[in-house]
Amino acid sequence: MKMVSENQENAGFIKNKWNLVKGLINKLVNAVIYAAKEAKKLAEDDPRRVVHSFKVGLAIILVSLFYYFDDPIYDGFGVSAMWAVITVVVVFEFSVGATLGKVVNRGIATLLGGSLGVGAHRLACFSGDKVEPILLGLSVLLIAAVVTFMRFHPKLKPRYDYGLMIFILTVSLICVSGYRDDEVLDIAYIRLSTVLIGGAASVFICAFIRPIWAGEELHNLTAANIEKLGIFLEGFAGEYFKSLERKDQEKTSLAEYKSVLNSKGTEESLVNFAKWEPRHGKFRYRQPWGQYLKIGAVTRECAYRIEALSGYLNSEMQTPMEIRAKIQELCTKMSTECSSALIELSAAIKKMTRATPADAHISNAKNASKNLKSLFKTSLWPDSDLVDIIPAVTVASLLIEIVCCTSQIADSVHELASLSKYKCPDDAMRQSHIGKEKILPTNGMEVSHNFSITVE
Amino acid sequence: MKMVSENQENAGFIKNKWNLVKGLINKLVNAVIYAAKEAKKLAEDDPRRVVHSFKVGLAIILVSLFYYFDDPIYDGFGVSAMWAVITVVVVFEFSVGATLGKVVNRGIATLLGGSLGVGAHRLACFSGDKVEPILLGLSVLLIAAVVTFMRFHPKLKPRYDYGLMIFILTVSLICVSGYRDDEVLDIAYIRLSTVLIGGAASVFICAFIRPIWAGEELHNLTAANIEKLGIFLEGFAGEYFKSLERKDQEKTSLAEYKSVLNSKGTEESLVNFAKWEPRHGKFRYRQPWGQYLKIGAVTRECAYRIEALSGYLNSEMQTPMEIRAKIQELCTKMSTECSSALIELSAAIKKMTRATPADAHISNAKNASKNLKSLFKTSLWPDSDLVDIIPAVTVASLLIEIVCCTSQIADSVHELASLSKYKCPDDAMRQSHIGKEKILPTNGMEVSHNFSITVE
Repeated sequence: MKMVSENQENAGFIKNKWNLVKGLINKLVNAVIYAAKEAKKLAEDDPRRVVHSFKVGLAIILVSLFYYFDDPIYDGFGVSAMWAVITVVVVFEFSVGATLGKVVNRGIATLLGGSLGVGAHRLACFSGDKVEPILLGLSVLLIAAVVTFMRFHPKLKPRYDYGLMIFILTVSLICVSGYRDDEVLDIAYIRLSTVLIGGAASVFICAFIRPIWAGEELHNLTAANIEKLGIFLEGFAGEYFKSLERKDQEKTSLAEYKSVLNSKGTEESLVNFAKWEPRHGKFRYRQPWGQYLKIGAVTRECAYRIEALSGYLNSEMQTPMEIRAKIQELCTKMSTECSSALIELSAAIKKMTRATPADAHISNAKNASKNLKSLFKTSLWPDSDLVDIIPAVTVASLLIEIVCCTSQIADSVHELASLSKYKCPDDAMRQSHIGKEKILPTNGMEVSHNFSITVE
Repeated sequence: MKMVSENQENAGFIKNKWNLVKGLINKLVNAVIYAAKEAKKLAEDDPRRVVHSFKVGLAIILVSLFYYFDDPIYDGFGVSAMWAVITVVVVFEFSVGATLGKVVNRGIATLLGGSLGVGAHRLACFSGDKVEPILLGLSVLLIAAVVTFMRFHPKLKPRYDYGLMIFILTVSLICVSGYRDDEVLDIAYIRLSTVLIGGAASVFICAFIRPIWAGEELHNLTAANIEKLGIFLEGFAGEYFKSLERKDQEKTSLAEYKSVLNSKGTEESLVNFAKWEPRHGKFRYRQPWGQYLKIGAVTRECAYRIEALSGYLNSEMQTPMEIRAKIQELCTKMSTECSSALIELSAAIKKMTRATPADAHISNAKNASKNLKSLFKTSLWPDSDLVDIIPAVTVASLLIEIVCCTSQIADSVHELASLSKYKCPDDAMRQSHIGKEKILPTNGMEVSHNFSITVE
């Protein structure tokens, strides 16, 4: 009996253990599956991420070769050769501009910081053995404090923050290690050359193996943001007047414009990166990166109006259908024409051509907004309460503002087109567009912009 | 004659040189004056910047003392002691949370990266002398690529990006330098302890000498943003109805709210920093940092409406004065009550008390918006064209939406108050407030929020 129960107990114990192990294995398998799914999603969202990851690994290996095989270099640099590896890891960024910016910052800061460190060290040498460390310490304190303070300056921060930090680093390292090792000049020289080797390897691999240009990212982001506003306006009228009987799943596509609201930071950092990049590929001329910021600003202005407009899609205050029907045609016209104009502008930016067809759409939208205003002037509304009209009137009035914003976006895109010397689309294509719209696009604006460049 | 002319030439030459030198000196003096002015402005904008700069210098000096005076430690660490200096320069940030986050990231990443590096090195040792570098190289490539890819994950990026980078750095350094120097374990140990010394010094100086807490910054930013909206609304009605005859220089103060539109990035990074900070000072309880993001989101929603509203301040479409006069009283009421509510809410956040007086203002604003709606119902406008009314009606309608937004802001602030267990303001003060407003604030909301916490 005892043995049987012992056997049972043992069996139960083993079963419990087995269950525990099974549970753990299950959890582990689930975690691995989760991680794999997340990784797959990350890679599918932007396949360039995978390429970038292997580029970083490759750059590290390339620089490590100095350690592995080149004995003369290794002997010359000693342990300092690891600075090349550190430089690669720290400096390698997603876009060429960001990498180049960091390399230039790091290189120049190491050069200047090294010179200052050596200078401070030489000066301190003239004092006695006891005073020297105190003098060096004080100068490091002062330099670190002054340069740290400089890092707060709004003009220096966006582009030179990293360089200022490396400057402090180099000065401190040389002043501090210099006290022991009297070959300060050698340290400074080795540090500079290892940083340059690491930086050169990073820039080389970043720029020549499937490069990602910040300028192109900015270019595409600007086009995509304008397109998102266009997509919202395309769907808005149908959604608001419920004429197209859209389904719920299509509603979600209308929320895409929301990312435009908070795009300022991304745009500014991309501009800062793009400024480091040389001319390349389709950006053959010096690009007017500042103009992209201007386009971004007016695009956001338009997005704020659209945000206010979107509040009326699911608002409690609803205008009765019969009143909405009165303004439906013109509002739909304004909305779709603005949408077409924005999508044309976006496509023109993408293709780097002049967006002449957009002007026709904007004229149409402006005409519709004029007609709407005159519709409001005629007394069509004596029998309806003002309270019923308000939401529809507000929607109409916001749409009128959006027409103005669209026109501003078009102006700034045209300005970009003449600053970057975009080509005109084929004359044949243009004719067919004009034929469709039956309104001649005004070219006056572009001429005046061309003029303003000559003056500049 | 010749000598005279030579003398004249010489005099002219000296004069030219002197002018050149004078010009250079002038330029130099101007540059110094400009720099000094900029520095003064930077320091006046935020005097803590000066303190922070000296704190950084102090931390570097403190860590350098290991070099200068402590021979046993220096001998133990060798050149690696500079890692402590590097850690200080790289890790010392403006706020305690940011510094602590970087130190924890760097510490843990160095520990894990060091372990993995040592492990990879031991494993590679079992293979032959020729295969070893290839195996090590491949493992570095693989680890670097996988971890670089992980850095793109949206959940890891905001808080652990720096740690992942240091992880790659440590693994590469140990694998690479390990090939030559067989005391890999020593390298890993020295690197970890120097990083810990540097990190500890940074955190100590950052947190104990006039600390700047990211949580407090976030708290103040949230309060300031709400206040800015309040200030705009305070001035708006007077500006729009031109009743107060404001001057141009006062108009500029109405543009302050614009910074709220793009505050999302700052708020998110402050939340990420604040999460690293321990409880301290007035934040005795675990703070619900996520709630600050919610408040920020509704504050921005309100700011977008205000942005749309501000377009009507200088709009071409102007409603005639007599029509505006009809809605002036109620619009002014809505605007000022919302303004008072927002300023109360902001003050309550600053003082960390419950914002009960704000509820009274919001009720008043809601009453005014109801009255406005019923004013629109009565036919006060038969003689006026709709086109004249539109801008005023849009302004009124945006103000009605702003009342809703204000109420949402109040809700989220009340939620924060109960999550962070804010105190009620003194009963006496509260009574006087209620007396003034003659409306009882509703406490129902807070009770329900208290309940929801219990459930959570």
